[in-house]
Amino acid sequence: MIENRFARRAAALSTAFPAPHFPSELGADVIPFDSGFAAPQLLPDLTGFAEAALTVHREETLQYSATQGQPELRSWLADLMNGDGCAIGPENVLIVNGAKHGLELICRLLLDEGDSIVVTAPTYFTAIPIFRSFGVEFIEVAQDGEGLEVEALARALEARRTAGKPAPKLIYNVADFHNPTGATMSEARRRALVALAQREEIFVVEDTPYRRVRFEGGDVPSLKSLDESGIVFHVGTFSKLIAPGLRIGWVAAEAELIARLIQLKSDGGSSPLMQRIIYEFGRSPAFAAHVARVQEVYRERRDRMIEAVRLCLPEARLSVPEGGYYVWLTLPSHVDGDAFAARAAAAGVNIIPGSKFFASAAAHPRNDLAPRHHVRLSYSYATPEQIDEGVRRLAAVYEPVAA
Amino acid sequence: MIENRFARRAAALSTAFPAPHFPSELGADVIPFDSGFAAPQLLPDLTGFAEAALTVHREETLQYSATQGQPELRSWLADLMNGDGCAIGPENVLIVNGAKHGLELICRLLLDEGDSIVVTAPTYFTAIPIFRSFGVEFIEVAQDGEGLEVEALARALEARRTAGKPAPKLIYNVADFHNPTGATMSEARRRALVALAQREEIFVVEDTPYRRVRFEGGDVPSLKSLDESGIVFHVGTFSKLIAPGLRIGWVAAEAELIARLIQLKSDGGSSPLMQRIIYEFGRSPAFAAHVARVQEVYRERRDRMIEAVRLCLPEARLSVPEGGYYVWLTLPSHVDGDAFAARAAAAGVNIIPGSKFFASAAAHPRNDLAPRHHVRLSYSYATPEQIDEGVRRLAAVYEPVAA
Repeated sequence: MIENRFARRAAALSTAFPAPHFPSELGADVIPFDSGFAAPQLLPDLTGFAEAALTVHREETLQYSATQGQPELRSWLADLMNGDGCAIGPENVLIVNGAKHGLELICRLLLDEGDSIVVTAPTYFTAIPIFRSFGVEFIEVAQDGEGLEVEALARALEARRTAGKPAPKLIYNVADFHNPTGATMSEARRRALVALAQREEIFVVEDTPYRRVRFEGGDVPSLKSLDESGIVFHVGTFSKLIAPGLRIGWVAAEAELIARLIQLKSDGGSSPLMQRIIYEFGRSPAFAAHVARVQEVYRERRDRMIEAVRLCLPEARLSVPEGGYYVWLTLPSHVDGDAFAARAAAAGVNIIPGSKFFASAAAHPRNDLAPRHHVRLSYSYATPEQIDEGVRRLAAVYEPVAA
Repeated sequence: MIENRFARRAAALSTAFPAPHFPSELGADVIPFDSGFAAPQLLPDLTGFAEAALTVHREETLQYSATQGQPELRSWLADLMNGDGCAIGPENVLIVNGAKHGLELICRLLLDEGDSIVVTAPTYFTAIPIFRSFGVEFIEVAQDGEGLEVEALARALEARRTAGKPAPKLIYNVADFHNPTGATMSEARRRALVALAQREEIFVVEDTPYRRVRFEGGDVPSLKSLDESGIVFHVGTFSKLIAPGLRIGWVAAEAELIARLIQLKSDGGSSPLMQRIIYEFGRSPAFAAHVARVQEVYRERRDRMIEAVRLCLPEARLSVPEGGYYVWLTLPSHVDGDAFAARAAAAGVNIIPGSKFFASAAAHPRNDLAPRHHVRLSYSYATPEQIDEGVRRLAAVYEPVAA
């Protein structure tokens, strides 16, 4: 009796997406190049902030809290974003239980089954099942070193219009240190994207987990800072900047859109305890020192990985990301990234084949719609020594795959 | 351009539901009989548990965690429920961001637009907009002192069948210390409900926030403990038992249903820090002492409120709840609870009119489908002195309303 009552939404979700490997599940000798976990030594000491939150602020932190989020934290976030070129207030900020929760709320607000949305090819693979659960069709747009190809998107929209198809409901993008490609969208492309979205009346969802994990180069304006007509939802998170376990993120958008998202946020408010801990840490001198250390440690790991790949896997093409967690390898077109990943796993190195990052194809692992000659390597959780050893192992299994 | 793109789901949500009054928003003299907040002196000291969580367990609590939840916490919850007559294991438990998040996930699993669900009349008003956001039709079933009238439900199901209408997808109920009525479902009714649901192949959602906030009388078996065919979703929360600000709850169900809910839980896992704090507190000697104090403080407040109402509002009928947070007043049928609540607010006492708790009518405050001669009083957040003073004020404004 049970089986036939599952809604099709759950069935639409694929198990084809790699589950995260938790540290405790890894064999002692396994090297986690698949991981988006934080480097353990970067997990900050929050004990003092937690103690203050649980004593001085106990009646705030252990009671129910406003659905929109803690007002001081929202003001602090608005200031942080305004220092980055935006012009928003606390009324434009909604606190959520991590960026994925923010994405899901935006989907609940905007999407009906059968709608279409725009994603890059490749795109962030954890977002794919969220979108799929809403029954959407994907419009995949290519990207290059400057990010999403806006002219290609304009042509795709025009082709849909000509074919009598409705416009997509939203454009989803990771503009800074894209996951998986590491590419950062250029300012010109960003301006073109926002202008196109405004002209076509399509919402933009800017997912920014890595924005402040920048190693070099100047900041490029966020899509939200270029948004003059209120069409950009900016999704932020503390997972990459402070610690993943906090499970607190935010959405910044027009106040009237925030009000609608609040109606859909039926969780009784995000934890006021976590919000207070983050706020106290964020406004302390420890925060800037922590961010500097995050940038330093991951830059060192990126450099180590780039060097190792260039040395040991000379056939792999790569672009050096200016921030973030990931290096995207483009292999010769006959090399099968899925087979490479399988052999790597057997040799004790976890990597994610590039085919998982293509939205239309990712849920059908046996089809060949997706390019298969990429793999994604993460340098956030592996130590420098593991990076050297892991890339050596990859080189050893690469030969038979590429032969 | 923005307005015409909001999905109808958001529009379906009404602003007719009372928003919680946060302590900081209350005027100094306002008495919060509308509040489900915890008595401040019952907010536990969690500093030691937080410190252990953030030091000894830092690599667990600040990294990503498994979507299903912390294994030790799930085992502890399974033991807790098994001590209460169930026979489950940690594989049957999913940790969620509060009970409402659990409800929403169950809705996402089971409901399609146009489906029907069964609720009591009246029912928990915060659940109403969650259900409404899924576009469901309500089948409202009456209840009496023994809880949901199962024979009336059986007749309603039969009538639907005769009319060629599909069966409802789920039956939602708060069987222990019902919100708002305070009624606890008798064992005979519970057995009849589970048997009926099993026969008719309809899922049951048992919402149990108050189950352990019992002042007197013996426990009645939970619906989950009577469930032999895996049709009951048991939704639990730490909000009423430990503290609302934790924002952690759980769903207990068949392992295969839990697996499907996990696919829909796209939040990156509930906070491992909060889970560790709860687990450490729960297995400490402080937990049992805390629960005993919760029961003692709320029993005292219940007694105080019952006494005050009997003395000052003799026209109001009430049943004495054996636990929970609420007293449900039945006024003479000509008395308008909405008008009473409005006058009470003007006199500095917040109460919630009974009409808000009727699912079909609650979103249309001007229609008269809902009985209007009830009000709900909460005794959890008002002090004993406020309870006396608040009921005196209610009595003063009652006369003109009842005249």
